[in-house]
Amino acid sequence: MKNESRYERGLAKLREIDGKAGEHVLESLDGIAPDFARYLIEFPFGDIYSRPGLDLKSREIAVVAALTALGNAAPQLKVHIQAALNVGVTRTEIVETIMQMAVYAGFPAALNGLAAAKEVFAQQAEQ
Amino acid sequence: MKNESRYERGLAKLREIDGKAGEHVLESLDGIAPDFARYLIEFPFGDIYSRPGLDLKSREIAVVAALTALGNAAPQLKVHIQAALNVGVTRTEIVETIMQMAVYAGFPAALNGLAAAKEVFAQQAEQ
Amino acid sequence: MKNESRYERGLAKLREIDGKAGEHVLESLDGIAPDFARYLIEFPFGDIYSRPGLDLKSREIAVVAALTALGNAAPQLKVHIQAALNVGVTRTEIVETIMQMAVYAGFPAALNGLAAAKEVFAQQAEQ
Amino acid sequence: MKNESRYERGLAKLREIDGKAGEHVLESLDGIAPDFARYLIEFPFGDIYSRPGLDLKSREIAVVAALTALGNAAPQLKVHIQAALNVGVTRTEIVETIMQMAVYAGFPAALNGLAAAKEVFAQQAEQ
Amino acid sequence: MKNESRYERGLAKLREIDGKAGEHVLESLDGIAPDFARYLIEFPFGDIYSRPGLDLKSREIAVVAALTALGNAAPQLKVHIQAALNVGVTRTEIVETIMQMAVYAGFPAALNGLAAAKEVFAQQAEQ
Amino acid sequence: MKNESRYERGLAKLREIDGKAGEHVLESLDGIAPDFARYLIEFPFGDIYSRPGLDLKSREIAVVAALTALGNAAPQLKVHIQAALNVGVTRTEIVETIMQMAVYAGFPAALNGLAAAKEVFAQQAEQ
Repeated sequence: MKNESRYERGLAKLREIDGKAGEHVLESLDGIAPDFARYLIEFPFGDIYSRPGLDLKSREIAVVAALTALGNAAPQLKVHIQAALNVGVTRTEIVETIMQMAVYAGFPAALNGLAAAKEVFAQQAEQ
Repeated sequence: MKNESRYERGLAKLREIDGKAGEHVLESLDGIAPDFARYLIEFPFGDIYSRPGLDLKSREIAVVAALTALGNAAPQLKVHIQAALNVGVTRTEIVETIMQMAVYAGFPAALNGLAAAKEVFAQQAEQ
Repeated sequence: MKNESRYERGLAKLREIDGKAGEHVLESLDGIAPDFARYLIEFPFGDIYSRPGLDLKSREIAVVAALTALGNAAPQLKVHIQAALNVGVTRTEIVETIMQMAVYAGFPAALNGLAAAKEVFAQQAEQ
Repeated sequence: MKNESRYERGLAKLREIDGKAGEHVLESLDGIAPDFARYLIEFPFGDIYSRPGLDLKSREIAVVAALTALGNAAPQLKVHIQAALNVGVTRTEIVETIMQMAVYAGFPAALNGLAAAKEVFAQQAEQ
Repeated sequence: MKNESRYERGLAKLREIDGKAGEHVLESLDGIAPDFARYLIEFPFGDIYSRPGLDLKSREIAVVAALTALGNAAPQLKVHIQAALNVGVTRTEIVETIMQMAVYAGFPAALNGLAAAKEVFAQQAEQ
Repeated sequence: MKNESRYERGLAKLREIDGKAGEHVLESLDGIAPDFARYLIEFPFGDIYSRPGLDLKSREIAVVAALTALGNAAPQLKVHIQAALNVGVTRTEIVETIMQMAVYAGFPAALNGLAAAKEVFAQQAEQ
């Protein structure tokens, strides 16, 4: 059935991209909005990230750029800095993407993005 | 001299990336803030876009993503959709980048980004 | 099949809520991102608006509030002011919702929201 | 006198809607901007929330939607999730309102709004 | 009576600061939200702009900075660029304020702010 | 050489305005993006803050206003509330600037700005 495979495709993609952090996001929805966990799997991951036409590295660069620029979703920015690393974006490429946001969203947005990257890189080094 | 080359490097980079649209931005600053035209050449283009570590295609994907998500800089989004085409990002990659922003900034942001892309692609087809 | 009914349910809901304006949004995606029209039908309308637990009037009040506060999606705000009228929100309730946003997003956001409402109400009166 | 009644009407409305959380907001302004506490009572509560034309449940749904979408005012979002409960909005309605913001402001905004709701609901359960 | 003088004080202040543009804003609310015109006179102008402790020039610099940075309220930004001129802020000071926003909100915000200033200055020159 | 003096001029200006907080920002970039520390010194401080045409008090009022309104850069807002004090803006002027943002960005933005000011003023009193 098509809808089940959409869920399954999304869950596999979520695990590929976000790893453990993705599972934590899903768990955080327990007891408050379990249906939203399903939507999160189905639409962003089952529909969008599963599309051809843009490789996963570029997709994660796009997300890191957007969340740095918006500056109002710190937990998700960290998840996607880790996700970028997971799909093969280098630390240098992440830092360059965030620094470039100084031009489009200002220095505070870039500084806060760089602080998030520093934290994620340090956590990764510990493991 | 280093500073001159920073300006020159920036101007060359601006022309490579933004083409005519970049020149129009500079001209628009005549008679209001000519120094700002210089800063625009020197910092974003002479400093940031001239850095190694992230290719120009990825840089333009990052900008298209961020400006789509912010949703409050329509003229600059169009300039960078064109710039993305100029540096080799395909129409499909641009559309995928913008569509993905529905996940991070909502459907209205993505719809307005797609409308901008449609307009830029049509202008390009006319030429 | 479940996915087809999700699409069909979404399309029916879109027509119920957005009327002609919804069809125009779908048409605007022709030739640029037809898949995005499908996602728009399936996720917002087939999934979210079709849920029980919050009546359509409250859903449209929520959207008018949010788009007024964000202030960066004028076309979608107009679509949803019309949608609010379509599902039974009164003009007074729409105006009150927008005015209240002065408290949460500032007077400019509320003024621009009221201008959008004035325009939509005038278009409706003409028809 | 009209102005006194505006203050008194606002204070009564603030207590009705925000309860203890409202008092904490007022106290937090001691020693920094006591006049702002007065404005907060008079304009949002004495003027806006005291208006007929939109019931308090709808007003709180509008605020929860807007603050979730803006994503940059976490403390106030929590106050208004509690306020929504105070005036009779159900937990389900609050969760639906926040989930719907995924469509208009993206999944990160909705996820952070749901986390705020989870926290407020848990605090309420403890009491 | 205190409330009447609050309205009167606000109206005088609005005329002093915004001139004709302020009257147009009030007129634009006719037939959609006349009470909101009263609130606009009373709270921003009768309460806030009438306070001692910050001179009008600084208040207008603050508003031009904030509306440039937010980037989602173009009509109000133009009104306040004119208002800044009305209360004695020089063209140079306005341009410097807007240019500085490139640092805090990015180059697109500053470019759009400068375009607004160019338009307002040109309109002023025509008169 | 011009570029060196741009760096030196920027560093002197950063120290004059931001004091110790500025040094902490630079240090925070160690090990993640040292080049960004250089850009921060050169463009905002070497270029923008070093310009004539707007005095430093007005520049800091503009920044406090903008960061309060944006509401997504709390650490930088605190740095600039301290910076405003450093260049001679009074506590009253800072509080007035932040309160005024209730009009342009809503009460939550102003409340969060006032909380930041309260914290900075208390830290200053301790020293």
